[in-house]
This record gives sequence, C-alpha cells and structure tokens, in this order.
Amino acid sequence: MNEISSILLDNAVNEFAKLPGIGRKTALRMVLHLLRQSENDVEAFGNAMIDLRHGIHYCDICHNISDTDVCSICTDVSRDSKTICVVENIKDVMSIEKTQQYKGLYHVLGGVISPMNGIGPSDLEIASLVERVKNGDVEELIFALSPTMEGDTTCFYISRRLQNDSIKMTVLARGVAVGDELEYADEVTLGRSIVNRMPFDYNK
Amino acid sequence: MNEISSILLDNAVNEFAKLPGIGRKTALRMVLHLLRQSENDVEAFGNAMIDLRHGIHYCDICHNISDTDVCSICTDVSRDSKTICVVENIKDVMSIEKTQQYKGLYHVLGGVISPMNGIGPSDLEIASLVERVKNGDVEELIFALSPTMEGDTTCFYISRRLQNDSIKMTVLARGVAVGDELEYADEVTLGRSIVNRMPFDYNK
Repeated sequence: MNEISSILLDNAVNEFAKLPGIGRKTALRMVLHLLRQSENDVEAFGNAMIDLRHGIHYCDICHNISDTDVCSICTDVSRDSKTICVVENIKDVMSIEKTQQYKGLYHVLGGVISPMNGIGPSDLEIASLVERVKNGDVEELIFALSPTMEGDTTCFYISRRLQNDSIKMTVLARGVAVGDELEYADEVTLGRSIVNRMPFDYNK
Repeated sequence: MNEISSILLDNAVNEFAKLPGIGRKTALRMVLHLLRQSENDVEAFGNAMIDLRHGIHYCDICHNISDTDVCSICTDVSRDSKTICVVENIKDVMSIEKTQQYKGLYHVLGGVISPMNGIGPSDLEIASLVERVKNGDVEELIFALSPTMEGDTTCFYISRRLQNDSIKMTVLARGVAVGDELEYADEVTLGRSIVNRMPFDYNK
C-alpha cells in the first residue's frame, strides 16, 4: 500500500512526477503547496497549462511559438527582414531575443539532423526555409545552431541546398566565453579562437 | 518587452514560477516539456490539480487528507484505536506511514503554536484532539512534533490541557540519527542521547 491515503492526491503527485527533473518527493511538495492555495489560484494554474496546449499556434512563417498565425517578430516592420537567424528550437529564439543584440527574423527548424535519432532533413522545417530564401529578399542567413556534430551537419546540409542562391551565410562566432578563465577553456575552443582571432577593438 | 512572444506561454510560465523552488528558467523548461506532450496528457495534468483542490476532504476525525469524510486510516479496524500520534501536518503522517512501524491512529494539528507567526492554540486542531481524548478510549498520545521551540511549546500546551486525564503521553525518541557519524552529531543531540541512553538490545 502507498503511504498516500487519497487517490486524488496520489493522482496529482503522479502527474507532477512526470515532469523532467521532478521526483515523487518534489512532486508531493509542489502538490501540497497547491493544496494550500485558493481554489481560484489552483484553477488558474491548471487552466493555464490546458489553455496553452489547446491554444498554442506556431508562426506560419518562422515556426516560432505564437498566439496568432504569424508571430509578433515576423509582423514587426521595424525588424530587418533581410536577415534570417536559423535556430534549433523556440528556446533558442528566446535566448537570442534576451541578448537584445539581434533585430532580424528567425527560422525555427524544430531540431537538427541526427541520423542516430532517426531525424532526417524532411523531419525539420528545412524545405520551408529554402522556400523563404528563394521567394523572399533574404540577404543573410545566420546559423545559430549548437556547435555539435549534428548542428554542423545541419548547417552543411542547408548550405548545400542554397549554394546556388547568392546569399551570405554566417555562423555564430566561436571562441572563449566572455568572463571565462583562459586556463579552463578546452583546447578545441582555444585553438579555434586563435585561428579566428579578431582585430582588437577598444570599444567592444 | 519580454522575450516570450506568446501570452499563453508567458501565462503558463508565470503560474509555474509561483511554485516553491521554481524559478522562471525551470518554469519555462517544464512548460516547454508540457507543450511537447499530447493534448490529453496536458489535460490530465491540469485537471489532476484542479480536481484535487476541488475534491479534497480532510478527515472529520484526524484531519488527515482524505477522499471521503473519514480517512482510510481512521476507518481501518485493524489499527490500534487506543493510540493517537499527534503530528503537525499531513506530510508527517505520510513520513510515519512510510516507516511501517506504527499501527495506531493520527491527529493532524495543522501547525504548531508560534506566537511569532501569530499562530495560537485556537488556530490548530487542539480542541478536537482534547475532545477525542475525553470522549474516546485513548490510552496513549505520542507527540511526533519537530524538536523545535514551537514544537515543544505545543507539546507542553496540550499536555497541560490533558493533565487531568489519565493517559500516557510520550514523545519521539531523540538521539543520534541511525547511520550518522558520531563526530558530526551536534552537541545538544549527543548530550540528550547520553542522558536518555537505552538498554543495549542485540536484536534492534
């Protein structure tokens, strides 16, 4: 027998424990916390999740998460529509937006090519990216994928698909992280950062 | 402006971030995980929380969490109804049940006396405990409250209220934790464990 004497409680704990990184002990703590809140608050919590899952859209153009058919980034006329930043998932869009350093548009692939996991080019939003480039006035494609084997493969595949289009393709700068101690940087990163050294600019 | 481009997503993240120990970054990770689940799974998650909050009962007798008016522990005739274990909250009931060492009943106070936090005896289920003792055939009351100032005060208050009733009152044994290194035990605990030393029993 379980030490929890309520089926409703047990059920709620089980649902919580399905979340990543949440064990049964943490789940119980969360659920007991919810139990102490008002009925309205708990309803707001539960309904926020249900409404999100039911109501969520993905932008028809860039496949970023959105409440409407076309997301607020794609509809923003103040942004540079000539530049598209290619990212793996919507979390990457949020990370880049947070830096406030980028004013172009995005394209969310929904993953990277990974034969080991059975993910091929057709599982990703690559065809729609190629179409965007061919039909639009895109001048630069920035590959902001993880510097892994899969990320590099995906960059390579897309660049081959677009090699006949005269667009500029760039990748994120790779090098020593800002604030990192040099002695702790791994040798591949350090090696690349020497090869790709930049002109010293006092203002940056 | 927020880096999250969806009000529904932002709303769900805000709700999650209200939980104890969950920051916005973890909340976002949880919500993005839910987004990848099927609509049915997310509905099950949200509804489990709402149903719990709406449907939950507290046992009329011991105030433990229950799906019915009287909990499964109080209705279990195989348990010893002459012994009541007094605990602070429902989590303590679960902890003690998990040990499988106790076969009596419980009484959940719903807190401990804490003048600093404005919690007096009338805010707790003390009157109903006194009534249970006076009306029933209770022989022993086990105080399983935390060994803190507030816990001790609560034990003292209840024992004074019941001093004219001829019942046995006990507290949890205090001493060195099983498996602890002696050198790391704090001196108050170690001191008490010497004063309250027990006869050596080979079988325990």
